[in-house]
Amino acid sequence: MTKKTKPTFRHLIEMGMLDKQAIGYLFQNAEHFLTSSLEKDALQKTLSGKVVTNLFFEPSTRSRHSFLIAAKRLGAIVINPDMSTLATAKGESLIDTIRTFEAMGTSLFVIRHSDNNTADFIAAELSSNASVINAGDGDNQHPTQGLLDLFTIHRHKPNFPELKVTIIGDILHSRVARSLIEGLHIMDAQTIRLVAPTALVPNDVDQLGVQVFHTMKDGLQDADVVVALRIQKERMQDASIPDPNKFYQQFGLTSESLAYAKPDAIVMHPGPINRSVEIDSSVADGPQSVILEQVRNGVAMRMAIMDCLLT
Amino acid sequence: MTKKTKPTFRHLIEMGMLDKQAIGYLFQNAEHFLTSSLEKDALQKTLSGKVVTNLFFEPSTRSRHSFLIAAKRLGAIVINPDMSTLATAKGESLIDTIRTFEAMGTSLFVIRHSDNNTADFIAAELSSNASVINAGDGDNQHPTQGLLDLFTIHRHKPNFPELKVTIIGDILHSRVARSLIEGLHIMDAQTIRLVAPTALVPNDVDQLGVQVFHTMKDGLQDADVVVALRIQKERMQDASIPDPNKFYQQFGLTSESLAYAKPDAIVMHPGPINRSVEIDSSVADGPQSVILEQVRNGVAMRMAIMDCLLT
Amino acid sequence: MTKKTKPTFRHLIEMGMLDKQAIGYLFQNAEHFLTSSLEKDALQKTLSGKVVTNLFFEPSTRSRHSFLIAAKRLGAIVINPDMSTLATAKGESLIDTIRTFEAMGTSLFVIRHSDNNTADFIAAELSSNASVINAGDGDNQHPTQGLLDLFTIHRHKPNFPELKVTIIGDILHSRVARSLIEGLHIMDAQTIRLVAPTALVPNDVDQLGVQVFHTMKDGLQDADVVVALRIQKERMQDASIPDPNKFYQQFGLTSESLAYAKPDAIVMHPGPINRSVEIDSSVADGPQSVILEQVRNGVAMRMAIMDCLLT
Repeated sequence: MTKKTKPTFRHLIEMGMLDKQAIGYLFQNAEHFLTSSLEKDALQKTLSGKVVTNLFFEPSTRSRHSFLIAAKRLGAIVINPDMSTLATAKGESLIDTIRTFEAMGTSLFVIRHSDNNTADFIAAELSSNASVINAGDGDNQHPTQGLLDLFTIHRHKPNFPELKVTIIGDILHSRVARSLIEGLHIMDAQTIRLVAPTALVPNDVDQLGVQVFHTMKDGLQDADVVVALRIQKERMQDASIPDPNKFYQQFGLTSESLAYAKPDAIVMHPGPINRSVEIDSSVADGPQSVILEQVRNGVAMRMAIMDCLLT
Repeated sequence: MTKKTKPTFRHLIEMGMLDKQAIGYLFQNAEHFLTSSLEKDALQKTLSGKVVTNLFFEPSTRSRHSFLIAAKRLGAIVINPDMSTLATAKGESLIDTIRTFEAMGTSLFVIRHSDNNTADFIAAELSSNASVINAGDGDNQHPTQGLLDLFTIHRHKPNFPELKVTIIGDILHSRVARSLIEGLHIMDAQTIRLVAPTALVPNDVDQLGVQVFHTMKDGLQDADVVVALRIQKERMQDASIPDPNKFYQQFGLTSESLAYAKPDAIVMHPGPINRSVEIDSSVADGPQSVILEQVRNGVAMRMAIMDCLLT
Repeated sequence: MTKKTKPTFRHLIEMGMLDKQAIGYLFQNAEHFLTSSLEKDALQKTLSGKVVTNLFFEPSTRSRHSFLIAAKRLGAIVINPDMSTLATAKGESLIDTIRTFEAMGTSLFVIRHSDNNTADFIAAELSSNASVINAGDGDNQHPTQGLLDLFTIHRHKPNFPELKVTIIGDILHSRVARSLIEGLHIMDAQTIRLVAPTALVPNDVDQLGVQVFHTMKDGLQDADVVVALRIQKERMQDASIPDPNKFYQQFGLTSESLAYAKPDAIVMHPGPINRSVEIDSSVADGPQSVILEQVRNGVAMRMAIMDCLLT
């Protein structure tokens, strides 16, 4: 494979910033880190001496540690402040906190925040040439998750224009779904389908370029890629949303419902999984599942992104 | 000294897995790290690029940081997640959390949990060739503490078959005592004695191969090694257990009670110490105390164990 | 510039320990780290293999992470325990906790504590040759902040004997002010003035070698350096202290009040800033502000101090 040209971008805020060439470069770079670093447990030096500051204003295990491991594998100094003692709690503004870490020499901010567009807002306020990665903002975007999802699909089914992809569950609140849908369009995926109860379909669904279904039978027909989303149990207190048992009966990914998809369809989930709510254990742990590969690919993709932004 | 043969084991779950040869190898390896790393403040590279994930589901200062320093001294990337924000708190199963960190590339899990046999359970569920160290499970085992205790004894009194060892206090709840007793048997220690109020002697004491005493005078007679255990004050609310003052009068290690042991006996305690409850300051800080040596030896022994499991 | 002679001191407890030569050496060393490490994002190796233990018994973002980054830039292993799970919470004495980390191989303790003289007390109890840096004790001293302040002044206005320095606000509770005043005297600053409401002037002000003013007009006249201090809003519940609005009217650093100072005066603040309480945004973010330079210089100065203590 010929080496692709490195795209030039300073921040990664949303999937829509990227084109097919940039995503192709990131696939190649992530593949490189899978082989050179994860398989061999080898430390890289490309971020040696640089400071990466992880600012997660929402609790997170997997994304937070995925970025942490990726940055450390690249040799960076990683700052992972405990939000509860952060000066913003003392009334300092978010921007003053950011500028303080910037003045201390941060080269890259990884930002998760419950408010939409926080990463964008921060990127606009920086006075150095530091970079920003959006690690999830409200219900808006989660581009590194979208990219690791695309990379995982690419490793199993590289011909995107032939693919039928079905995304199931709480689309309404899912920044993961939003970034993945944008990415699939960039890669020219043939068909993108959503399967969800009416109350969990976003209002702007007409502008997403997708087909909407309300039964698994219709939505999963001949799918190549099946993505189950996490549904937060707290949301199910809303009367318009089915309770966990009903949701599982209608929209749970089980061996029965998965049988509507192609026999070699892959099954994805961003995690953490609610077993017996949105997915059955026989599927989550079954032969079609690539859920743990997504986690592994996530470290490699984040290495690829950081390397691309900072070197 | 001739170089001993490296034992081959993937996990360290309980003391009983080891034989005299394996423990001898670990003594030699720990001695090597004391000299080459701790004395010289020199970083090793043997775990460079490998990820060590510390999962402490119980609060801990000394063990947690001892493992952390040991792993960093060996050049590892160390993940030390804050339990309160861990996804297991969001309802993810323990095994899903473990598999996530495994997929991110963890080579070694260090596990502390309030449930007996958690480390064993986790080791059986791994799908990679990652290793597990039990850093304390319930009231069952704490093998790295047992090994650092043996190593500390070995550095002062290397001839185990001649030794009389006395362990004092809350044997019932002590995984430290249980691992040490097993280790002393493996090393063929001559005599192992327990001194405790009846309510703090375990039910299965007959199977432990020890002598039980209820007074310091009887239990400490001619001891070479004296181990005081931490007693948790909350347990003393139980009517069958003496209150702190009474416990100190009957079972506190003071210069008076220590005088029953041999004049060159060493005094050990796993920490943290309750001064004037299980031990007097004159003894804890006195010339026979090797309590801080235990802490130092703990870092070296954990380096030795990690090095042995992962290289 | 000729290389200055390295001063020999093991601990940094208070500004008064230093003389002009020692401070001059630290300026030169901090300048070296600004150039060689911060500008180039280059890792140093001078503390490689050494353990730095950060013990912050008070919440802190900027100092804690400034020390963390400085130590990591020098190649140290940094231990940053979570205070809430620290064994001192289990009733272990502070000194036993310190001795435990000392036995694990700590070369340097960085201590912040709400009690005056804690760092000094700890330094006296160590049994190894580990060093202690006071990172703020009660309302007593914060010498590394004082040094980074002096260094920031030095980079803009190197001729201290000609300088008029004005410090504004809550002097009474400010260890920052106390360390800076001592440092300015060591450097032979011409004039040191305080501007504060009566209730925020310390009782021992007569011994500080300063002039006290109660209006901005009088206190800022012809100042070369203007330092606004943080005032904690909780303190303003005291009836003798103006409320935030009144405080801002009388003692807030605004473009109007700053106009009393020299036109090229620099504006400093230790952070975090309360905008519209002690300082106006137009000044904090204005051309005379060096507040973010202080943050950057803080990392370099802490590198300089650690390097000086440990090598």
